[in-house]
Amino acid sequence: MTIVEAAAAIRQGKVTSRALTEQCLSTIGQLQPKLNAFITILGKEALSQASQMDAELQQGHDRGPLHGIPIALKDVFETKGIRTTCGSKLFEHNIPQRDSAVTEKLATAGCVLLGKTGMHELAYGITSNNPHFGTIRNPWNPDHVPGGSSGGSGAAVATEMCFMAMGSDTGGSIRIPASFCGTVGLKPTYGRVSRYGVMPLDFSLDHMGPLTRSVRDAAVVLQALAGHDSRDHTCSNRQVDSYFPTETASLARIRIGIPENFYFDRSHPAIVAATQKMAMKAEQLGATLVPIRVPDIAGLNAISRIILFAEATATVEPYLNRRSEFGPDILALFDQGKYIPATEYVQAQRLRRVFQLEFARILAAVDLILTPTTPNVAPRIGENTVRFGELEEDARLASTRFVRGINMLGLPALSIPCGLADGLPISTQLIGDAFAEALVLRVGAALEEASDHRHLRPSGL
Amino acid sequence: MTIVEAAAAIRQGKVTSRALTEQCLSTIGQLQPKLNAFITILGKEALSQASQMDAELQQGHDRGPLHGIPIALKDVFETKGIRTTCGSKLFEHNIPQRDSAVTEKLATAGCVLLGKTGMHELAYGITSNNPHFGTIRNPWNPDHVPGGSSGGSGAAVATEMCFMAMGSDTGGSIRIPASFCGTVGLKPTYGRVSRYGVMPLDFSLDHMGPLTRSVRDAAVVLQALAGHDSRDHTCSNRQVDSYFPTETASLARIRIGIPENFYFDRSHPAIVAATQKMAMKAEQLGATLVPIRVPDIAGLNAISRIILFAEATATVEPYLNRRSEFGPDILALFDQGKYIPATEYVQAQRLRRVFQLEFARILAAVDLILTPTTPNVAPRIGENTVRFGELEEDARLASTRFVRGINMLGLPALSIPCGLADGLPISTQLIGDAFAEALVLRVGAALEEASDHRHLRPSGL
Repeated sequence: MTIVEAAAAIRQGKVTSRALTEQCLSTIGQLQPKLNAFITILGKEALSQASQMDAELQQGHDRGPLHGIPIALKDVFETKGIRTTCGSKLFEHNIPQRDSAVTEKLATAGCVLLGKTGMHELAYGITSNNPHFGTIRNPWNPDHVPGGSSGGSGAAVATEMCFMAMGSDTGGSIRIPASFCGTVGLKPTYGRVSRYGVMPLDFSLDHMGPLTRSVRDAAVVLQALAGHDSRDHTCSNRQVDSYFPTETASLARIRIGIPENFYFDRSHPAIVAATQKMAMKAEQLGATLVPIRVPDIAGLNAISRIILFAEATATVEPYLNRRSEFGPDILALFDQGKYIPATEYVQAQRLRRVFQLEFARILAAVDLILTPTTPNVAPRIGENTVRFGELEEDARLASTRFVRGINMLGLPALSIPCGLADGLPISTQLIGDAFAEALVLRVGAALEEASDHRHLRPSGL
Repeated sequence: MTIVEAAAAIRQGKVTSRALTEQCLSTIGQLQPKLNAFITILGKEALSQASQMDAELQQGHDRGPLHGIPIALKDVFETKGIRTTCGSKLFEHNIPQRDSAVTEKLATAGCVLLGKTGMHELAYGITSNNPHFGTIRNPWNPDHVPGGSSGGSGAAVATEMCFMAMGSDTGGSIRIPASFCGTVGLKPTYGRVSRYGVMPLDFSLDHMGPLTRSVRDAAVVLQALAGHDSRDHTCSNRQVDSYFPTETASLARIRIGIPENFYFDRSHPAIVAATQKMAMKAEQLGATLVPIRVPDIAGLNAISRIILFAEATATVEPYLNRRSEFGPDILALFDQGKYIPATEYVQAQRLRRVFQLEFARILAAVDLILTPTTPNVAPRIGENTVRFGELEEDARLASTRFVRGINMLGLPALSIPCGLADGLPISTQLIGDAFAEALVLRVGAALEEASDHRHLRPSGL
């Protein structure tokens, strides 16, 4: 069941928030030992909040489509009085005194908070293999990672432990677990969703967004989250659009750019084929496919890592002397960050602007760009490389290859499932112009409707 | 004569642009051997341009208050077909193919270009003691520096070689030579004046503005320069105000903050006394003086140097292997820039934001802040330290102490002469809120009118 379906069922009296919450908690109870998707589960609190939401509705107070919907938050979102760890030993006992803007807005919208999902330590990796809070497992195959850093959110949404889980995305951390777990994942435009009260990894690359079971659900959540927040000075005061796709599936007059270079290179053949099939579906729905050439994305990814290393290390610097409280993988990344010269960082920021202008030119000629989300399926737990035919590539570099650069550009990007390969989910990415979330979601919803993949669910758990 | 006076005289038929230009060229001819204010002098071209401006006026085509006014540009502003050196051997033979936005706008406003003024090499210093284009001298005492980096502009405006000369200001480079030479100097808000076609020193600290002989002249020039320019992506699209002060001298209801800390410490006693006298004049004109406490400006200056070192070195990096073409002072600065870690740069930018917020709070309580421009008078040529009683301080650090931090905040700041000490000019600085140039100029004009210092001119040359 999706949020949209649950919202309708609640209003038709077919189900209550309490019943949905009980169902989610039961699924959590059953799957948490197998998947370890949560760091904190709020059983009693969620049930009481659900009852309150039901009472409100009975009294005629309807907060809208998220009223009574059970959800979860990645453990980077501060929750007043509820432990927020960021997947780190540093914050093992951290009880925030405030809610993040996202926490607050979802509560105001009527969401029922089921708990805080597990993640890659400090949101700095793609496996969610957490040394402090345990390994999170992929619901399609527990020997594989769920992706990261929002791995718990991906596993929880895919298995109906919750209707939606929030993620954060610095170099793909929403889209990668969405792709590896078979959910929808939306990284909005930089500045569209407030980051107030979110533990930062990288000021200029962090984005907040939902993982959901449908594109329309992502639209409903974005509608609740988008908008200015003076407490986050990077938050845009640009007007909020209407995100819920109401139009029928016709994509007439929409120009979709299909990259001739980079985005279909060195990929799992099934992922290339499935993404091409999505493009053909878009064409059948009336869209015009336009072959495009993208600038040097490998170079963009390289300067992205310079910026990420420097900003992430700067963020964590006050804690870096507590070395035993870090996992070895992220400690190596933070240590690398110390030795980047400021001049390289400045040059990377200058080059970033050049890439932004090049993409602005591309997005003046097409409305959207369609690519695979990742070139690979979820790696096995403990395997640090993935294979493309004869070629072996670092799993982190491969998994972020098609998503990381988009954070540098600040553009909105939506990941939607497009099938299975080797029994694991694969996804297509739609990249739009800045603040063009409404169009991205509309095209995403049309493609989702036209495909069967929305019915795919992990089985055998 | 000021621009405002010259503009009136031209329209009254008392003088022509040609006559003004001839007069300026004659003064240049007389003083250039003594002061070395210019790198390039455009005699013939200026005369022909002046004649054209006169002809236009006779035909009834009046471009406004700068029509026919002879001016000069610091040699950082690109001029199509005219050598632009940035005071550097690297660009000794550089003939740009384009005009800077400032060059273009002043030409459109009718200014006659007399030449390109000398400067500290690559705008990276306060002495204007240039190893490639010669020492520039202070018109009040040729044994002293004119200040920098816009030293040629300061010397030229003070001695009536031109009516206005443009400067650029990264850490005080407009206000310091204005103060040391006894002219008005205006550093506008970051983003108010386009930097297109200006050789950059530091992307996040560079500002462009005029040195003039009166505050109203600075207002006339800003009016011609302010506004959006899509070719400079840091240029603001905020609406341009009316900058020319038309009100009478009353300063009723204007709250002027007088810092209790930092800005009157470790200064030449005559500078402290003269600035306090300016504050009392403001009070007599109706302003309310409000004692304020400023945050740790020494700390702000320190992080400013981190940002400056890193960004300046990044800018010059492609040329740094040509070591023999750099003067030793700036080579040392560029070399220091290489060894700043990116994490320090990032922390400096984060702290910068904190200071911006603290100043925003101060400027919500007062309209302006009044301080000395520099704690010292112009140092002697070749002297690297200045004395404050028993204390000796590096001349560069002392001269930039009250001005450098304001570049970090991006706020507008106006330097106006407030007397003489040891036979050399001294000045007061007015700092306003972002984009509040109109108010800064209005108060500056009132203080200038109420004081005698506008009549001070260097003599004995």
